[in-house]
Amino acid sequence: MKSIDSIQDIQDTARGAVFLGAGGGGDPYVGELFLRSQLSAGHHPRIESLEDIADDAFVISVAGVGAPTVLVEHLVSAPTFVRLLEESEQVYGRRVDALVSAEIGGANCMFPLALGAMRGLPVLDADGIGRAVPHLDMTTFNIYGCLATPSVLVDDSGNTVIVRTTSNRTAEHVIRNVASALGATIYGSFYPMTGRQAKQFAVAGTLSLALEIGRIIRSAREHSADPVRGLLAGLRKLPDRRPCRLLFEGKIADVLHETRDGWHFGRAVLESTHSGRRSELIIEIQNEYLVARRDGRTVAIVPDLICVLDRESAEPLTAEMLRYGQRVAVVGYAAPSVLRRPESLAVVGPRLFGLKEDFAALEALIPGEE
Amino acid sequence: MKSIDSIQDIQDTARGAVFLGAGGGGDPYVGELFLRSQLSAGHHPRIESLEDIADDAFVISVAGVGAPTVLVEHLVSAPTFVRLLEESEQVYGRRVDALVSAEIGGANCMFPLALGAMRGLPVLDADGIGRAVPHLDMTTFNIYGCLATPSVLVDDSGNTVIVRTTSNRTAEHVIRNVASALGATIYGSFYPMTGRQAKQFAVAGTLSLALEIGRIIRSAREHSADPVRGLLAGLRKLPDRRPCRLLFEGKIADVLHETRDGWHFGRAVLESTHSGRRSELIIEIQNEYLVARRDGRTVAIVPDLICVLDRESAEPLTAEMLRYGQRVAVVGYAAPSVLRRPESLAVVGPRLFGLKEDFAALEALIPGEE
Repeated sequence: MKSIDSIQDIQDTARGAVFLGAGGGGDPYVGELFLRSQLSAGHHPRIESLEDIADDAFVISVAGVGAPTVLVEHLVSAPTFVRLLEESEQVYGRRVDALVSAEIGGANCMFPLALGAMRGLPVLDADGIGRAVPHLDMTTFNIYGCLATPSVLVDDSGNTVIVRTTSNRTAEHVIRNVASALGATIYGSFYPMTGRQAKQFAVAGTLSLALEIGRIIRSAREHSADPVRGLLAGLRKLPDRRPCRLLFEGKIADVLHETRDGWHFGRAVLESTHSGRRSELIIEIQNEYLVARRDGRTVAIVPDLICVLDRESAEPLTAEMLRYGQRVAVVGYAAPSVLRRPESLAVVGPRLFGLKEDFAALEALIPGEE
Repeated sequence: MKSIDSIQDIQDTARGAVFLGAGGGGDPYVGELFLRSQLSAGHHPRIESLEDIADDAFVISVAGVGAPTVLVEHLVSAPTFVRLLEESEQVYGRRVDALVSAEIGGANCMFPLALGAMRGLPVLDADGIGRAVPHLDMTTFNIYGCLATPSVLVDDSGNTVIVRTTSNRTAEHVIRNVASALGATIYGSFYPMTGRQAKQFAVAGTLSLALEIGRIIRSAREHSADPVRGLLAGLRKLPDRRPCRLLFEGKIADVLHETRDGWHFGRAVLESTHSGRRSELIIEIQNEYLVARRDGRTVAIVPDLICVLDRESAEPLTAEMLRYGQRVAVVGYAAPSVLRRPESLAVVGPRLFGLKEDFAALEALIPGEE
């Protein structure tokens, strides 16, 4: 059992979560603020590794659902979080022993930590996908047959909705529409499971990974003349040695944002500003960065992570932060290996996002460098 | 306590419910079929008058929610109804003593009768509005402060959603969106209340009224050379002596149907086919017939009822049944007096439907005839 003891740790975790969000998942700033206030009140989130959780422990995911832009503007209130936990325990008919993130990327990294700190509940060092995704049913929990519901949904106005569906696809539709009807971010409990199921199905170590990546970025900024290359060097030293690549450095020449059917769609066109010949990278966006094509050739594709960073500071940028003229670097980072299996690609692969090509691993698209 | 004993009674009630639906509420044919099968199985719906219900009895409304067109195509399954009642009793924490229609107009007249017959529960001779309305919060229950939730929603695929909101407006938004997410009609329990509250707030006698109007239409068809005038004569003999008017007789010259934001919007233009000079009636539609204007002058307006009838048979027609060339008669029928009070008009008056005029009573718009 570790604990998050410093504001530095919270900031590092939040920054790492934006990196792992691959453009989506929303800015964790609100969650970070909330968590800082918990820390000031002496409530420190405790992190428990998957091995340490009892097989018969009762674990739930807690997450915000709604447009990332709303998530960012909307302050979370402590009583709402407490109500979420209490109503959930009533619906599930038992006490919750531990919390886990449904997705580690973006804002949803912070909410279990905040609730865990408030109620003295451990948060598992794991999550349901190892990145951010635009659908509730895009999780390893779902891929391996856990039901997303019963699910308790609450908002800050005192409304409560309990959802019990026979399929996770239906759960996604219903919960998305409830969020839209309530006109703001809602918070919910999802994927009730045992400790044994969490061990089997969760992506392990991702909370530590967010903290570690945040630390690497901070350290690269302090000690490296080129923070982006410093970050890449740091990623390569991590224990799981997942492939990473510098995909592009350049300037945003065009960026299109469109909100449609409750999602943020977009496309960013980058041009390289140095090195004699002209080169271009196009990134397609549905909340997350889905695919990056350099001069017409795919160089990284979902579920591998595509991360856009500020060129100077290596600050990870969510899709809604991209602006014309920004100087950025684009990094590809291999997804956790479980996401590259056929059963996972059937749920989070490129075709699920309407892309007309199959998944290809980052290190196959750009060989070498390991 | 009366009971509905014959298929004739069911058919009459269904036809009367279409009349009271004022163009909306959907065709009760599916509910009628369901109810007929209950009758064949020896399950007769029992009707209880408001005076006979105990003050401490526990009463709920049950209703279908969704586009009327879907409601008509979708067969209701008995196990779904039973599940609705059982889940509701669990959520409310007590046994249901009686059922009541949320709206008497259209299909939602039939569902409490069907469930009541199956489970041996009485159905109150009353409803929450005395007609059909396009929103769940347009009820006298809401007008006098009853909460529409907790509400249990079920569908035929085994999905369940429990909604608890702090306002009935929010309940309407959430429940409408859940219906849309589940892609079909859902059935729900609404407005849990005591017998005492039902006595205070429900519109009394409306189930008997539907049956009575159905009988009047049948009798007018059998015994009157002009069934429409026979119907008007019959309505005038009813005990509550609500004003009614023949607004127009003519042919549908133009009809526009548009489905937008989950509602059926439309406009029907009628031309008179007899009597020397040319005359025209325009009816504006949002699920229900909202306002009728004869040669530019308003002759009936919501919440008073506007009913379009087949000219020859006096068969009441829902808005989606209107077709170019149909010969029709249009009848105005005063709303129950409770709906004409200021507090009611604030919830179901013309302005709520985006109309730019205030309510005026049918008998003020067309004096005389009483």
